[in-house]
Amino acid sequence: MIKYAILGFGVVGGGLAEVMADQREKLAAAAGEEMELGYILVRHDYPDSPWRDKLVRDFAVIEHDPDVAVVAEVIGGVGPAYEYSRRAILAGKSVVSSNKQLVAEHGAELAALAREHGVSYLFEGSVGGGIPLLRPLCRCLAANRIDEVYGILNGTTNYILTAMDQRGRAYADALRTAQELGYAEADPTADVEGIDACRKTAILADLSFGRNLSPEDIPSRGITAVAPADLELARAMGYTVKLLGRAARTEEGVCAFVEPHLVPESHILASVNGVMNACAIRGSAVGEVVLCGPGAGAHPTASAVAADIADAVRHRADPQVPDLGTPGDKPLPADELCSRWYVRAKCGPEAVSAAFPGAEPVYGSTGECGFLTAMLDRRQLEKKLAAVDGRAAYRVLA
Amino acid sequence: MIKYAILGFGVVGGGLAEVMADQREKLAAAAGEEMELGYILVRHDYPDSPWRDKLVRDFAVIEHDPDVAVVAEVIGGVGPAYEYSRRAILAGKSVVSSNKQLVAEHGAELAALAREHGVSYLFEGSVGGGIPLLRPLCRCLAANRIDEVYGILNGTTNYILTAMDQRGRAYADALRTAQELGYAEADPTADVEGIDACRKTAILADLSFGRNLSPEDIPSRGITAVAPADLELARAMGYTVKLLGRAARTEEGVCAFVEPHLVPESHILASVNGVMNACAIRGSAVGEVVLCGPGAGAHPTASAVAADIADAVRHRADPQVPDLGTPGDKPLPADELCSRWYVRAKCGPEAVSAAFPGAEPVYGSTGECGFLTAMLDRRQLEKKLAAVDGRAAYRVLA
Repeated sequence: MIKYAILGFGVVGGGLAEVMADQREKLAAAAGEEMELGYILVRHDYPDSPWRDKLVRDFAVIEHDPDVAVVAEVIGGVGPAYEYSRRAILAGKSVVSSNKQLVAEHGAELAALAREHGVSYLFEGSVGGGIPLLRPLCRCLAANRIDEVYGILNGTTNYILTAMDQRGRAYADALRTAQELGYAEADPTADVEGIDACRKTAILADLSFGRNLSPEDIPSRGITAVAPADLELARAMGYTVKLLGRAARTEEGVCAFVEPHLVPESHILASVNGVMNACAIRGSAVGEVVLCGPGAGAHPTASAVAADIADAVRHRADPQVPDLGTPGDKPLPADELCSRWYVRAKCGPEAVSAAFPGAEPVYGSTGECGFLTAMLDRRQLEKKLAAVDGRAAYRVLA
Repeated sequence: MIKYAILGFGVVGGGLAEVMADQREKLAAAAGEEMELGYILVRHDYPDSPWRDKLVRDFAVIEHDPDVAVVAEVIGGVGPAYEYSRRAILAGKSVVSSNKQLVAEHGAELAALAREHGVSYLFEGSVGGGIPLLRPLCRCLAANRIDEVYGILNGTTNYILTAMDQRGRAYADALRTAQELGYAEADPTADVEGIDACRKTAILADLSFGRNLSPEDIPSRGITAVAPADLELARAMGYTVKLLGRAARTEEGVCAFVEPHLVPESHILASVNGVMNACAIRGSAVGEVVLCGPGAGAHPTASAVAADIADAVRHRADPQVPDLGTPGDKPLPADELCSRWYVRAKCGPEAVSAAFPGAEPVYGSTGECGFLTAMLDRRQLEKKLAAVDGRAAYRVLA
């Protein structure tokens, strides 16, 4: 019987062991054979765990067991996760992962290594948690030139923005609630500054455009500066505020960035609230599809990782390695991308008209106004902001 | 080089030939080898077609060409589509199809035949057009016990309901526009009576619950009786009206039906307008995911069929045949399923309170009222309708 190992026994690792046990029969049908949990790599003792017989502290035990065909890396971060992933592939084992940082930073290298060693490297759970997303993008939409991917890729920030929008909460207040509910970490930087969304945007761009982008080259703005007034003014104009990761093919190359956006209330993404995630994919044949669901959490993420384990077992004769692209030029400067903008400003309607002809300001309870501009790039926009005492400016999703 | 054949040169057949040519290189990468269009089976001459050299009128030419590995059946209906699908499988060729009627009525039989003959039988395009839906349901969610699938599965009726809702159109008027725009057939029966949605619901239920249901056993109501007053009253209560196909696992078995529903405006499905389709899937590990996109049209459907062709070529050594379940008991009577109901009635608030204690009627421009009931099954509901002069009753999506 084929064995698999789980590296890491945190939230996702525990959920994965449960899901694999719960749906053992169905997963065996998907894999084409029975699969047995061989080991869970841990750093602490868990004497009361139902899997206590499977716990090991030394990765070499897993590495040297020839019956282990698949290793699920759910440690997170880069250090040991990267080292163990490499060693597993070198030992002829398929690796599946939900680790967006590792996939974004070293995925192309690990994919090349997997191809070289004839094993699978799959990472469905690294973007969008439980949402079927990467396999649909790469397999179901194989008949499409992908032109754009964009979406709500971080549940923590979407929870905070939803609380600010629906319950009028201030940012710091909504963040505190998110932390109390376990939706945000004690140090929320990676979420609220857009770093997590940036990694996922990099993975989506890599798979969509065949160019491996470094997350460092994707400019990312978070939500720390979004004010209740922005949500109030957006709503008055028929929009809501969402943090979007976007990557698009242009005539000159690939453009990718993470920024808060105004999304029209009629757009499906405007209905994606709380910790839900959603990703839109624009393809040459299909037009646009939108895939929504829980973007994080133990069981949703385990759902994705478990399916990858089954897929890796099923395809031992035909290893599955999605194409994360080859490194090349940097992405185009996002600031040069034109769009309409929302501006929050402190000035009278005459000043708005003078700087932004045709804009129609709406005034909110803070005395500030909001309005939408014509198509501009960021530099053109920023030149005009001083004239209206501009306090915030976000792109409008067309 | 591997050859494929297209059966049928209508809207989808023409779109498929275009998409396969347009994305030839990307599809070859997905398939693992180059694929060449061998034949298109036609019933008429097309002397100006760019594919005129590939047109044949006799299926036997395709059947007897050993280089043809995959046959794409996009004829529609049952007669020749069924016969050619059978003969192709018997000749050792994989079959892919976007034909929901054939898959709903004979899919399990063709799947068994395909398994017996070691070929693939795939039909991603039969439900939800270009939306990645069946592969995500069967593969990406393999680690889930599926508990419910439900969605907007017919674009024609969704276009009509959207026009009624957003532009206040009457049903007949909205239908006429849909026909002028090519969104509805001259004989719209299969769409507006829920027959098309019923076939797709059957396929989703088959794949989700391992029980092959006959479309005849799935009670289906269409939208012909939906009145502008229903949309007006629903909106006043914070809902919109959508035709949903639903299939759920209950303790006693499987329940499936097609009916207009009131959907809360905050639900993602309420934002799915016009000819768009969307399907929600509830699974034991993932929770709920919603997949949205164009449910019909030449290129979106071709996108799904082309991906199936590539998948069938790639998996010649490991044929892909989704499990459409085994025939068994009939589904549970849908009328016994309890839900909250929306009722449109012609009576005063006292009559509403007497028959439906706690209900809060809202009055619209026709002088009729709308209200929501407590949990009832259809028989319990219908007993009470006479007392309020009830004119319409639709389930409320919880």
